[in-house]
Amino acid sequence: MTLPPIKPGKIVTMGEVLVDIMAVERGRGFHEPLNLKGPFPGGAPAIFVSQVARLGHPAGIIAGIGDDDFGWLTVERLKRDGVDVSAVRVHDDHVTATAFVRYREDGERDFLFNLARSAAGRIELDAPARALLAECGHFHIMGSSLFSFHLIDEVRKAIEIVKANGATVSFDPNIRKEMMDIAEMRAGVELMLQDCDIFLPSGPELLIPTASRSEEEAIAALFALGISAIVVKRAARGASYYDATRAIDMPGYKVTEIDPTGAGDCFGATFITCLRQGMEIEACLRNANAAGALAVSRRGAMEGISTLVEMQALIARSAPA
Amino acid sequence: MTLPPIKPGKIVTMGEVLVDIMAVERGRGFHEPLNLKGPFPGGAPAIFVSQVARLGHPAGIIAGIGDDDFGWLTVERLKRDGVDVSAVRVHDDHVTATAFVRYREDGERDFLFNLARSAAGRIELDAPARALLAECGHFHIMGSSLFSFHLIDEVRKAIEIVKANGATVSFDPNIRKEMMDIAEMRAGVELMLQDCDIFLPSGPELLIPTASRSEEEAIAALFALGISAIVVKRAARGASYYDATRAIDMPGYKVTEIDPTGAGDCFGATFITCLRQGMEIEACLRNANAAGALAVSRRGAMEGISTLVEMQALIARSAPA
Repeated sequence: MTLPPIKPGKIVTMGEVLVDIMAVERGRGFHEPLNLKGPFPGGAPAIFVSQVARLGHPAGIIAGIGDDDFGWLTVERLKRDGVDVSAVRVHDDHVTATAFVRYREDGERDFLFNLARSAAGRIELDAPARALLAECGHFHIMGSSLFSFHLIDEVRKAIEIVKANGATVSFDPNIRKEMMDIAEMRAGVELMLQDCDIFLPSGPELLIPTASRSEEEAIAALFALGISAIVVKRAARGASYYDATRAIDMPGYKVTEIDPTGAGDCFGATFITCLRQGMEIEACLRNANAAGALAVSRRGAMEGISTLVEMQALIARSAPA
Repeated sequence: MTLPPIKPGKIVTMGEVLVDIMAVERGRGFHEPLNLKGPFPGGAPAIFVSQVARLGHPAGIIAGIGDDDFGWLTVERLKRDGVDVSAVRVHDDHVTATAFVRYREDGERDFLFNLARSAAGRIELDAPARALLAECGHFHIMGSSLFSFHLIDEVRKAIEIVKANGATVSFDPNIRKEMMDIAEMRAGVELMLQDCDIFLPSGPELLIPTASRSEEEAIAALFALGISAIVVKRAARGASYYDATRAIDMPGYKVTEIDPTGAGDCFGATFITCLRQGMEIEACLRNANAAGALAVSRRGAMEGISTLVEMQALIARSAPA
């Protein structure tokens, strides 16, 4: 199976915009008063779509915010990056989603979310959302957005609409193994594996959805489901691309890690955008690796978003002498 | 009208427990990344009931938390202060309430709440709540807890139960004038004015519920509603007590103001507790003024709670030489 043809139009995503409140000190949980910093605009779909727009590709998001400072902060940020926010609905009886984030000593993160009962949990395909989907050439979903059956249903309807129009679909699972035991997450991942053209797992996420024991087994199982291309993100080690005829490994770029939040989202956005801009797979991988590396070198989820000029400068600097 | 007789039993309150996230820098709103400090356990009813327990009086609270660090932090704090938390329900599908708080340059505060859609909005008179109400000798409500018709209905039911048992009721309106335009707040205040024995407004709050132009007019109107006693909190200037036969002014205590959050709640808890412990009105007012002064001299809503020994030390230090 090869990649479907590119349908002109916006790259559209659908899911949570939120603010991150980051603990300054590392450690576990939020049981005591800590020094915090925030609000930082965030949410994987918001980071993804802002990175798309920053690369000059038309982009839009279907989302929900509360009528509060946190919501307006995220919308202003999306607008400034050039994202179409016409389908961001303002709910006057729900608040904007929040995520308290604390890094542990080992680099893992503890989260405390207000998501399902926030405005991000009320997303539905209202008239502005359907208008945006009518302009959609490619539709992207983050696994983090599939946190309720209501949202899975709305995503299913959105995919039916964009596929009927000839748009392609990509999916970044953004899950941990134990999350497959949550009924909503499993249902959401199963939906997306049936419907996506491009699958963008990070490392071990490649094996989880098909419960495979090796990369080869997982790739074969995913192709059997009808997926056209798989891009495996390997953080500092770069990325690999697989389709029916090709397997391409591309090394990553060395940077000082400051904050990995959002790096995978920037990678995915850059890969999809470059592919739609007609670049070769190798160039898409190089730019996406550079986007991920630039993201980890800066603090704050959306502060890691970069331009093609910045990506190419990093690539040039890193070229073998 | 005189104060009803004291019925033995717990002082019970019902309402929001939450965590405060405080901005370190003064200014307006939450539009940009700020230095924050939190979570601090808080919520006016939580502060009130912890102050009661700290004075050695049996105390309990009907409340709701999420199954998250913020909720467990507040419950642990209440337990440590000696509060009966058997009627604090843990909701697995709602998060613990939060309040982002920022002081403006002029000392006013900006708030960003997650309350109505949090576990604090789901309070209902379940079996543990009814068991606690059966032990109630005095029931206290904060105006801040009357933020939805659902909660007003549950408070109404609770008052019917405790009044049938011979318990007394107090109300701290905790409102600003413009809040009376909110249908829920107006309905809640009207309910409480019909049902409370002791009314504890702060300064201008005395005039708001009866739309009075002077203190005298307000006091007459409140007595006409059947209220037995009115205690007006005047911050640094102390407090005044009014009933059908007495008007007593009691000056406050001089302290360096660090954080006024919770001072009124500590005042009210101390006044009600001392009254139930059989002290004269003058002693109740002195202790309550000292409780309020100690609260403003410490940062953090619940850090301002003090013991009777601390209050009496402040009173002794402040006595004329």
